[in-house]
Parts: sequence; structure tokens; C-alpha cells
Amino acid sequence: MSEAATAQRETQGGDIAELMAEMGRRARAAATLLADATTQAKNAALDHMAAAIDAARTEILAANEKDIAAAKARGRPDAFIDRLALNDDRIDGIIASLGVIRELTDPVGSVIDEWQRPNGLRIARVRVPLGVVGIIYEARPNVTADAGVLCMKSGNAVILRGGSDSIESSRELVKCLRGGLRQAGLPEDAIQMVPVTDRTAAGEMLRGLSGNIDVIVPRGGKSLVARVQEEARVPVFAHLEGLCHTYIDRDADVDKAVKVTVNAKMRRPGICGATETALVDAAAADRLLKPVVEALLHAGCEVRGDQAVQAVDARVKPATEEDWRTEYLAPIISMKLVDGVQGAIEHIRRYGSQHTDAIITENAETAQRFLKEVDSAIVMHNASTQFADGGEFGFGAEIGIATGRIHARGPVGLEQLTIFKYQVRGDGTTRPA
Amino acid sequence: MSEAATAQRETQGGDIAELMAEMGRRARAAATLLADATTQAKNAALDHMAAAIDAARTEILAANEKDIAAAKARGRPDAFIDRLALNDDRIDGIIASLGVIRELTDPVGSVIDEWQRPNGLRIARVRVPLGVVGIIYEARPNVTADAGVLCMKSGNAVILRGGSDSIESSRELVKCLRGGLRQAGLPEDAIQMVPVTDRTAAGEMLRGLSGNIDVIVPRGGKSLVARVQEEARVPVFAHLEGLCHTYIDRDADVDKAVKVTVNAKMRRPGICGATETALVDAAAADRLLKPVVEALLHAGCEVRGDQAVQAVDARVKPATEEDWRTEYLAPIISMKLVDGVQGAIEHIRRYGSQHTDAIITENAETAQRFLKEVDSAIVMHNASTQFADGGEFGFGAEIGIATGRIHARGPVGLEQLTIFKYQVRGDGTTRPA
Repeated sequence: MSEAATAQRETQGGDIAELMAEMGRRARAAATLLADATTQAKNAALDHMAAAIDAARTEILAANEKDIAAAKARGRPDAFIDRLALNDDRIDGIIASLGVIRELTDPVGSVIDEWQRPNGLRIARVRVPLGVVGIIYEARPNVTADAGVLCMKSGNAVILRGGSDSIESSRELVKCLRGGLRQAGLPEDAIQMVPVTDRTAAGEMLRGLSGNIDVIVPRGGKSLVARVQEEARVPVFAHLEGLCHTYIDRDADVDKAVKVTVNAKMRRPGICGATETALVDAAAADRLLKPVVEALLHAGCEVRGDQAVQAVDARVKPATEEDWRTEYLAPIISMKLVDGVQGAIEHIRRYGSQHTDAIITENAETAQRFLKEVDSAIVMHNASTQFADGGEFGFGAEIGIATGRIHARGPVGLEQLTIFKYQVRGDGTTRPA
Repeated sequence: MSEAATAQRETQGGDIAELMAEMGRRARAAATLLADATTQAKNAALDHMAAAIDAARTEILAANEKDIAAAKARGRPDAFIDRLALNDDRIDGIIASLGVIRELTDPVGSVIDEWQRPNGLRIARVRVPLGVVGIIYEARPNVTADAGVLCMKSGNAVILRGGSDSIESSRELVKCLRGGLRQAGLPEDAIQMVPVTDRTAAGEMLRGLSGNIDVIVPRGGKSLVARVQEEARVPVFAHLEGLCHTYIDRDADVDKAVKVTVNAKMRRPGICGATETALVDAAAADRLLKPVVEALLHAGCEVRGDQAVQAVDARVKPATEEDWRTEYLAPIISMKLVDGVQGAIEHIRRYGSQHTDAIITENAETAQRFLKEVDSAIVMHNASTQFADGGEFGFGAEIGIATGRIHARGPVGLEQLTIFKYQVRGDGTTRPA
């Protein structure tokens, strides 16, 4: 559809359903072709995309300036404007991430498992793309490129529905991505962006565009994810909150406990893998509590604690019930004593969000129990919860971190964007009565 | 909850929501315990269950007689009554299937993948149960036992909501299953049956019981599955129809074509893996069409065909557009000529249900193309579509065949009833800024 035609549609509100239906049909057709594309062709597309983005810096930055001006006019806060802003460094980052994805192993066509039945049938389980992925996200324009190309490399068509704040920047980036597909002889409709940002378009996507969307990935705040989960009639890889815990066991090494807890909270307090609550084994509070609290305070962290934690330092504020349920995403931590690993597991079961939780201990048995019994996507031993990240896992990139229990759990990388089919080979083999 | 209390609740319609909420809480608590149960304990439970069913034959058959009398009074057709009926042989079959599931490898705790990062972090992807599975099914009482124990062996709690027609038989079977769990020291609430069969109870399950159901598996006819997909607010492993195709290529061996096609349709015309449409390559119709049509007619199959197929034998009836879209589940087949493998792929793309489709050919290249490009859960070469079955795949048993694209695709066995978690091990490892 030409941009002029799209613009015309934008003026006709009632046509949004038809516009979305058409995008769904195009996505499905593109997905069918892309599913059989070679790795070579997909990598060539990535090269062309990177070159196109590099060549379009002026246009991208000009579009981004429009977005920023509009966001300022809307009174968006500074942190929001910062996430929205592009500059040459950030464009370099987008190009670099295309290069990283280029180097990742293409999961499509790989044989997961293969066996032979007594009747001679040979059965292979082979990776195939999911089909059409719908991504509904908020402001950051780099999501446009990252999500688009991760879906493409894994053989999926994608429909991107970004927030209105980044629409000009995203439009320029998507032009480059589609150009790259075209230059590589791949269907450009494998990456489409919804040209309007009203709720109707997202609502149509959540209803699945008549079977033309296979999964929805929401990326954004709580209210966006909640709406998607409530309204979606297709499967969702939801990323709910990351209410992560670090539990410091009686057998913890105090230096590791201090170092890891401070890193888990303070390296970047605003990411979903940041620790929000530190639990300390009451049996070793004398040895462990004070050093950890002091180090956190020294690092500029606000500490909210139970009475034992408050007793350590006058700067510790009292924690309320609400604190155990709060994902601060800020330099604030809640802390309390628990009754050993069992107490930690119970606290995490009650308040956690099944995202990422860590234990600090030198006791291998206690660690094993924690890793087994804490039912979170990621469980860690003597490591910072800030490692909850597809890049850090070696996935190259991620489209989000799933906190659900179906299909994808934890970082969603290329492999989680695929499913499998069974290929069964016989020789005129029939099934006996 | 005692049976008396349950019965009392049944008289109080408004309490069904509370009854279901309580079942959800009990299921979650049981799932938490069962997730950490040893294979030995789970196998002991299976032994106790089998012994209990064997010892309760009289009670089970008496309960089944009540179900059958009620079903006859409701005017259910004979085939329906046959599926509902239990006898000593069928009870033997249920006991045997417990033995099969006992021998299956427990997937829980197995390491799917393991790697080390340059910073020393060791990451393992380990199988864990899904959590709580809700099964909504129709008449067959053996589903009660099969589904219940498959979920149990894979570490999941299950809430069974069967049809009203089998409620007495299912109640007796569930008593045996729960007794087996208790005797093995496992939580009996790992297998619960909804004691009422009105729509409210199923509706509550579809809304997820406040996060206490992780996935719903519908087993039944189209209208049940459609309702589940429309109303569910939790993930669904849906089994839609099996509109399976067998394509006979120009390079097919005629004997294999005849043998496989007749088996694919006629071995058991009523199962979801039965072929509903045979496509014949127009380029070799002279050689292949007549033998296949005659063999099908000879086997007692009604053939509905396009003009070319009608020309073969006067008994062939004309096929209409509707025939290509129909899952007969009966000794009827639709047949037409297509323009080679490309024509077959296009027909299947248009009319298929992504369940199971087969090609008959001696040409390896053509076979490979079909296996790659036909986007179905199961694609077969020179084999009968009737092999679409978890048992035939070596899964021992299945809870259904999923036609969706998320998490489970094809036969849903023990492994598909699990998900994974990441266990990350460091040594005081922190993430650099």
C-alpha cells in the first residue's frame, strides 16, 4: 500500500479494521515465503538493512527530532524523552545489533530430535518459524529495528505497532528494513508497521486478524501488558513485572554477598532484572546484614527494611507490606530477615513474579534446593540478577523476557520465535488395524 | 472436601465460583509439591492407582451402568453409548495404559541444554512441569485416567472437567487415582475432578481460576473447542479438526499409493488422522487414478470426485466446494487432480487444517519439497496419515494432538506438558556497567 493510500485511510477511521485485515493477509503471504528463505538471503537482507540505515542517518535523525518536539509538546518527562532520542551513537548501536543478529545461528530447519520406530518409520522434529508475530510496544525506536529483524531472521513476518511518540522515527527505520528485504529478494511485507496508533488498530491485532497473527508480544508498562492479556484472543508472550529477589544465605561469603547484591540493585536500577528485595538469613544476620545494608546505602540506594534492618542504620526506612509487592525500578530496595532458605522460598513464592531470583551461598546443597524449588524463569546462584538478559545468555538479542509458562520462558531469542513440525518418512508404511 | 459438602454445594448454584476457586488453590498447592516429587514416588502412585482400579472393578462397572442408563434415557446414539461403555476388557486397557505411562522417561529435571559464558557463568536449561493443567472433555471415561496420569507423571496438577454423561464412571476412577497418590505420599489434590458439569464450572476454568490454571486442554468436538478458544483467558492446547490429505505424486509407486491411501482413509475412518482428501498428480492420472479409486470403492469407501475422478467409475459421486472443507470422520473421501506437488501444496494451504498431510512418491527431491513447504504439525512421506498418534510416535500416550503453533504441536505427550527454567551458576559474578 502506498504512503498516500495509507494517509488517506488514516482520515477514514472506519477503515482501520480493513487496513489491519489487509496487513494480516500480506503478513501471512510474506511469512509463507520467508519460512522457506535461506539463511544466506536473510543475512543479505540484514547487510542491506544496515547499509540503508547508515545511509539514511539524516532522515532518521530529522524524523526523530519531530518525535521529540511532539513529545516535549505533550509534556513527556525527561527520562521518557531520553529513551526516545536518537543520535549518531544510538544509530551505530542499532546497526551493530543488526550485525550481531546476522552472526546468530539460524534456527529454522535444524533437527531438534530424530528417531526410528520399530516399524521402520523415521521421525524428525524440525524447527520452523512461528508464522506472524504481532509486537505492540511503547516509545523506544530501537525496538522497531531489534524486534523486526529478530522476527525476520527466525523466518517470521512481523507486524509492528509502536507508540505514537516514536512513529516518525520508526517509520524511517522501517523504510530501511523493508528496503533491505527487497534488495535481498525477500518479501518486504515480512516487516510491516501499523501506520496509525489509535487503540482500534491494536485491538484488531489482539483479535488476531482472522487467524493471521500467531502470537502477540507486548513490550511496555504494566497497563499495556494488562490490556493485551485481557483482550488478546491469540497467544501472548507476556513480560509482566520483574520483582526479583536476592537471598543471602547463612553460608554466604560476605564479600560476594555485598558485591552481588549492590550490583543486582544498583548497576541499572530501572531494568526488569534489577533486584527489588534482598532477603537475609536470620541465622547469620549478625555477620551479613550490616555490610550489605551499609554498601547499599553507600552506593546511594534507599533501603526500606523490617525492624532488624532498621536497627542497622538510622537511614533505613521502615518497609510496609506494600514494599514486598513493589517493583521500584529505581534505587530503592526492600530488605528483611527470613528463616533460612525455606523462609526465602516461601517469601518468593508469595511475592515474586517468577522472573529472576538469586541465592548467595557457598553451600552447594542449599543452592541446589533454591534453584530447584524457586519456580522462576531464571534462578541464579552467586550471580547478579542483572544478568537476566538475552544478550548475557548468549542469545545475541532478545525480543523480551517472558514470565508466562507456555512456549517461551525467560529471554525470548531466535529459538523461542520458532516451533517445530514432525517429518515422518516411511516406505509405503501402513498402520495395522 | 467431603462428598457430602460437595453435594450440598451442588444445590447452591451461586457457590460454584467459590468451589472452583478452592479447587484452583488446592491444585496450585499440590502442583508445587508434585513439581519436586521423585520419579520413584510418581511411579509408585501409578502402581497403587492400577491396583486400586483393579480392586474397584465392581464399583466402576456399577457406576458406568448408571451413566449408560442415563445416557440412554437422554436418547444418546449407539456410537456414543459405545464410547461411554466400560467392561472388563476396557478396564484392563486403562490399567495397561497406566503401566505404559509408568515406563515412560520422566521429563522433569532433565537438562535440555547447558553452556558456559565467557564471564564464567554456567547456564542450564532444565525441564520443569507446566503447573496446573485444566482438561475439559466429553464422554469417554478412559480420558479421565489417561489425562490425569499423564499430567501427574509430568509433575502437573490437573483439574478434570468431564461431560455429564460419564460423571459417575469418572468419579469412581478419580477415587482410585487419588487413592494411589495418597498411598504414594503424594498430594491427592494433584488430580481433582469438577463435581458439577454445568457451564459455569467450565467458564470459571476458562477464566483461569485467578492464575491457578496454566493451560487448558479441550478434548471433544468442534463446538467445545470453539467455545474454549473464544472464552479462554489462559493458553489453550487446542485440537481443531484433522482435515488430512494424501497427495499421490507423478513419481509414486502405484502399489504403495493404493495401499497407503486405503489405509489412511479406511483403517479407522473416524480418527483425526484419517485422510479426508486424496490429491492425484494430473501428470500421472492415467497410471495412478484408477487403481486408487477402485481400491477405495472396493474397501467400501464412498468417493466424491472432480470430473476426472468421476470418469473412472460410475459409483464416484460429484464433489462440491464444500467437500474440500469437510472432515468426514466416516468412510467417505474427496478426490481431485492437482497440478503436481505445487498444486498439492496450494490445495493443502487453502483447505488443510495443519494437522497431518502425506505425499506418496519415489522422488526424494519432491518429497523433501512437500515436507518442507506443507505447514502442518505432521508431514509424511510414503506413510499413512493414520500414524498421527502419540503412541505411534513413541510418546507412550498423548493428551491430544495440538493444531496450534505455540508450545505444543502435534501429539501432546509428557514432554509437551513441561516447560523449562534457566539455572545460572556463578561465583560472585556481577554484570559490568
